[in-house]
Amino acid sequence: VEGITPMVDGGRFAAKRVAGDRVVVEADCFTDGHDLLAARLLWRREDETRWREEPMAAIGNDRWRGSFGVDAPGSYVYTVTAWVDPFLSWRHDLARRVDADDIRIAALIGAELLETTAGRAEHDADGKMLNAWAGRLRSTEEADALKQIGLDEALKALAERCPDRRFAYTFPAELPLVVDRERARFSTWYELFPRSTAGNPGAHGTFRDCEARLEYVAAMGFDVLYLPPVHPVGRERRKGKNNALIAAPDDVGSPWAIGAAEGGHQALHPQLGTLDDFRRLVVRAGEVGLELALDIAFQCAPDHPYVKEHPQWFRWRPDGTVQYAENPPKKYQDIFPFNFESDDWPGLWQELKSVFEFWIGEGVKIFRVDNPHTKAFPFWEWAITELKRDHPDLIFLAEAFTRPKVMHRLAKLGYTQSYTYFAWRNTKWELTDYFTELAHGPGREYFRPNVWPNTPDILTEYLQVGGRPAFMARLALAATLAASYGVYGPAYELLECQPREPGSEEYLDSEKYQVRHWDLGREDSLQAFIARVNKVRRENPALQSDWSLRFFPIDNESIICYVKSTEDLDNVILTVVNLDPYHAQTGWIELDLATLDVDPHAPYQMHELLTGARYLWSGARNFVRLDPAGAQAQIFRLRRRVRTERDFDYFL
Amino acid sequence: VEGITPMVDGGRFAAKRVAGDRVVVEADCFTDGHDLLAARLLWRREDETRWREEPMAAIGNDRWRGSFGVDAPGSYVYTVTAWVDPFLSWRHDLARRVDADDIRIAALIGAELLETTAGRAEHDADGKMLNAWAGRLRSTEEADALKQIGLDEALKALAERCPDRRFAYTFPAELPLVVDRERARFSTWYELFPRSTAGNPGAHGTFRDCEARLEYVAAMGFDVLYLPPVHPVGRERRKGKNNALIAAPDDVGSPWAIGAAEGGHQALHPQLGTLDDFRRLVVRAGEVGLELALDIAFQCAPDHPYVKEHPQWFRWRPDGTVQYAENPPKKYQDIFPFNFESDDWPGLWQELKSVFEFWIGEGVKIFRVDNPHTKAFPFWEWAITELKRDHPDLIFLAEAFTRPKVMHRLAKLGYTQSYTYFAWRNTKWELTDYFTELAHGPGREYFRPNVWPNTPDILTEYLQVGGRPAFMARLALAATLAASYGVYGPAYELLECQPREPGSEEYLDSEKYQVRHWDLGREDSLQAFIARVNKVRRENPALQSDWSLRFFPIDNESIICYVKSTEDLDNVILTVVNLDPYHAQTGWIELDLATLDVDPHAPYQMHELLTGARYLWSGARNFVRLDPAGAQAQIFRLRRRVRTERDFDYFL
Repeated sequence: VEGITPMVDGGRFAAKRVAGDRVVVEADCFTDGHDLLAARLLWRREDETRWREEPMAAIGNDRWRGSFGVDAPGSYVYTVTAWVDPFLSWRHDLARRVDADDIRIAALIGAELLETTAGRAEHDADGKMLNAWAGRLRSTEEADALKQIGLDEALKALAERCPDRRFAYTFPAELPLVVDRERARFSTWYELFPRSTAGNPGAHGTFRDCEARLEYVAAMGFDVLYLPPVHPVGRERRKGKNNALIAAPDDVGSPWAIGAAEGGHQALHPQLGTLDDFRRLVVRAGEVGLELALDIAFQCAPDHPYVKEHPQWFRWRPDGTVQYAENPPKKYQDIFPFNFESDDWPGLWQELKSVFEFWIGEGVKIFRVDNPHTKAFPFWEWAITELKRDHPDLIFLAEAFTRPKVMHRLAKLGYTQSYTYFAWRNTKWELTDYFTELAHGPGREYFRPNVWPNTPDILTEYLQVGGRPAFMARLALAATLAASYGVYGPAYELLECQPREPGSEEYLDSEKYQVRHWDLGREDSLQAFIARVNKVRRENPALQSDWSLRFFPIDNESIICYVKSTEDLDNVILTVVNLDPYHAQTGWIELDLATLDVDPHAPYQMHELLTGARYLWSGARNFVRLDPAGAQAQIFRLRRRVRTERDFDYFL
Repeated sequence: VEGITPMVDGGRFAAKRVAGDRVVVEADCFTDGHDLLAARLLWRREDETRWREEPMAAIGNDRWRGSFGVDAPGSYVYTVTAWVDPFLSWRHDLARRVDADDIRIAALIGAELLETTAGRAEHDADGKMLNAWAGRLRSTEEADALKQIGLDEALKALAERCPDRRFAYTFPAELPLVVDRERARFSTWYELFPRSTAGNPGAHGTFRDCEARLEYVAAMGFDVLYLPPVHPVGRERRKGKNNALIAAPDDVGSPWAIGAAEGGHQALHPQLGTLDDFRRLVVRAGEVGLELALDIAFQCAPDHPYVKEHPQWFRWRPDGTVQYAENPPKKYQDIFPFNFESDDWPGLWQELKSVFEFWIGEGVKIFRVDNPHTKAFPFWEWAITELKRDHPDLIFLAEAFTRPKVMHRLAKLGYTQSYTYFAWRNTKWELTDYFTELAHGPGREYFRPNVWPNTPDILTEYLQVGGRPAFMARLALAATLAASYGVYGPAYELLECQPREPGSEEYLDSEKYQVRHWDLGREDSLQAFIARVNKVRRENPALQSDWSLRFFPIDNESIICYVKSTEDLDNVILTVVNLDPYHAQTGWIELDLATLDVDPHAPYQMHELLTGARYLWSGARNFVRLDPAGAQAQIFRLRRRVRTERDFDYFL
């Protein structure tokens, strides 16, 4: 038994699924000689002691497949066992025999085998029946009759109930599996700065203002509302507008410079509101279908209470200062990093874990974690495992934009979802290559992408120069390529695209350093477009998972074309996006109809879900046109022709 | 530290190399944060206790590479260790600093670091020098000067001699490596039936007759002479000519039906000669550059002495008989298989191992093992490991034509070389796909192909119908696609192609069941062609290993084109073969000149090594023509233009 899938690093790390999934497990099972094998899939919840068993079937080339269903979040383990099955081997051998003498000898061997099997039977009735079959094999003379008896399906079923598993080989590792709730696989995120939600321009927004914004966000079809840190902002070395090193007296500073006299990671910024206000926001969000996600940024402003209370958690330099945090090329002069190698690491780790626990206690189940790659790997594995033991419905999103292997390692250590390089993948080739890797590479077992066309840190050149069509295209790509995506709003729907300076991905007048007021009702807002796209996502299960993604050729490098589908091909969604924000583009798509279960000789309907338009297509090659002046993207649902009994066609 | 290559099944099985190789090892080494790493490759002979160390260098994307040389056959182990290097991290950080105060603080930190490093120095001189550098960092004021001191290459070299490896992480498995002698990688086999070597037609050949044949085989350029079993042939149930179930009185039977009154696996067939004759043959073969390989077939004729002496080694049926051996669809009515699950398996295993030991004692170092997949996997792992411990220069060739995973498992268990599916891969697509897998798939670390266009069991349809051109094409393919290949002769060079019946791969009048007399001097013999091809193999190192193989496009499905080369591209061999045995074929090759280190703007010479003809080519696209009436294959050596000082060109 070897080559089990899924298996992450030989079982060192867990594969991931969500509740409701059937977990399909495959393995290579083979032995020397010509004997036949039987194999079983063993699985259980991690805290159970007895294996449950599922049958496995050979699917060719010594590969076996089985599956089990998981209906609740939590930790599971599974493995595979296989054994040489003397009865199946004997039966296979008997089927090949033609010589009457050979058959008679085989019958005697079979009778002996069945008698031994009978001795092993768990139920007396089975034992008796096996002995009866053995008797028939011993007492029958005629070769054809013997063959018929030996090959009887009822006998096979009976013998398979009492296998001889004394010499079974069980794969030596129990392979871990983490089952999350469905939102881990399918989620639609909206990030906003609470302090920019005041109705009154210039005022500092509050949790109450956020409440008033909930309907607006929910109406666009988002289900996770993610807030940057809501804690007191440090005053020492506070940043001014546009990342200025010296703040003006009225500057609000960066919310990621956490901690001041009012408190640290377990306190709220006084200008946002009280803990009661926060609790109310959590509840009100839930009422409109939004789940609140908090940003966990393990770092401190110089005036964070930790700095005085636990100086041992920081790395002091010979001149008595602490080197500010960096994530090259970014410099965070207003932030001290923790020293995860501190001698008091147990104290630090416990305290940081308690930060999660505090907010879990306030009803938060989703955490976006800031720059996790700059903190110790072992801390994450320990903290996430501990927290999920008590709260299997937690979701952790890793905000790591770093080297690929480090991002993958964080996902293996327990992160539920991961930021990706999507923001910087713009051409057809880049998108095809990257999303093929995400959807079909080995990392898909543990790395769940959450793709963002923008964040407060990332205003890509494409968005800077491409205008509204660029924002439409990138949103359509994010929403249809990935089951989980998010935008930083209202900057996104309001097409915010001025960089701080040429060549920068920072926003001019970034909300990271100042309060902004947004005119949500602007006529060019993408609000309605986003709402339509998210409605399509909600209504089409094909778009709610990642693995079915396939790209189809189209004879224009500016148009990308891909299909996602449910396993039963009941829901098939084809998306085309114009990657050129300036010009209309046309092209001929080449579909692989066989894999879509489409009759190549009958017309089929392509129902464009953003506009409601319906197109009649036929055959593999079909024409599309996308125009920045109108639609930069089309999302089609495939509807196959159904012939009614009264010889009347419709499309379903 | 993870993702080490080579690594077979997490270190469960050994990778394979030959003496003289440099073993290149790569690994992913990374950590959280921005600290810099150092990594070392650890290796030793298995029986040594101390690791040897080689440097590893980062090659991008967190991948590191190092290598070590192995000069003698035997068992080795290796692994990788890596650590966060505070000095390198500090140096990297210092290089980025521009602010003078920052640089001064960094210098103090560096001084402290160097003083700690000095305490760890193995040599006093190093410690003193480190302290001196620390002093300079402490006493210098000027920022630029400090930076220069800190970044000094001499300091780096000094600090790297005294790394802090207390927190080094060493990959937890010691990865095994089997190093064989060079013949394991590059060998040219010739199989013949000794009993068919008599000068006198109708006589039973002897070892003395074989001696007379040695020159002929050596002159064709072979280096391994492989003999089917040379033991007494059973008389009970002996097969007659053409696999007849009843033998005529003068039938000689199959040499694979081993054992009779005269003895078993450690005896010689009396008609072949005495042990002295055999010893003489071994010596004489060596004198002409041929190494003798014996066939080890663990099975018995019904009258093998084992059957009476050790009945417990066989599986007796209720009627007191033993089921004859089968390798479906083949039936060996004249052979009893061993029961490897016998209660006396320790006795059986020891006895079988002693068979190898007996022939090793007689000077045989190469064994072709018959149908190893029908014997117990654990037996092979045990026997081969034990035998190679005392005799690391042994070579075992697995004659298993079975399911891919079983063939791979046998190679993992210790077989040095493996038979392949080559005989049944005929089209360009099949050959390209299969040899790309063999040369570039993960199995190449342990599965060394030995390809045979024919064997006594395999007369393919292609050879049956294609005549002499088919024999030329298949020999050229075998000899240039694989570093190890063999033919069953003289059937091969004499174009033996009559099947026993239509649809069969068995030879008519097969030597397996009767003595044959061969007319070696026949005019249409491929003897001279084979000699030329093997000479090309000996003279061109590119053809002596498997991993450099690359296929190039040619616009004709009947012609296949590929290149093998040495690592330094000094020896580049391009082969084209016409797969159509009936018609002349022409085509345009498309070469990737950049990968061959060929100047696209200068002519280059293609020196055809079978005929000696020289062609002047230029650019990527070049024309070839292959004609069954003349050459079915061309083997070109690339010769690049060299300009002399006197402005005179020649091709080297």
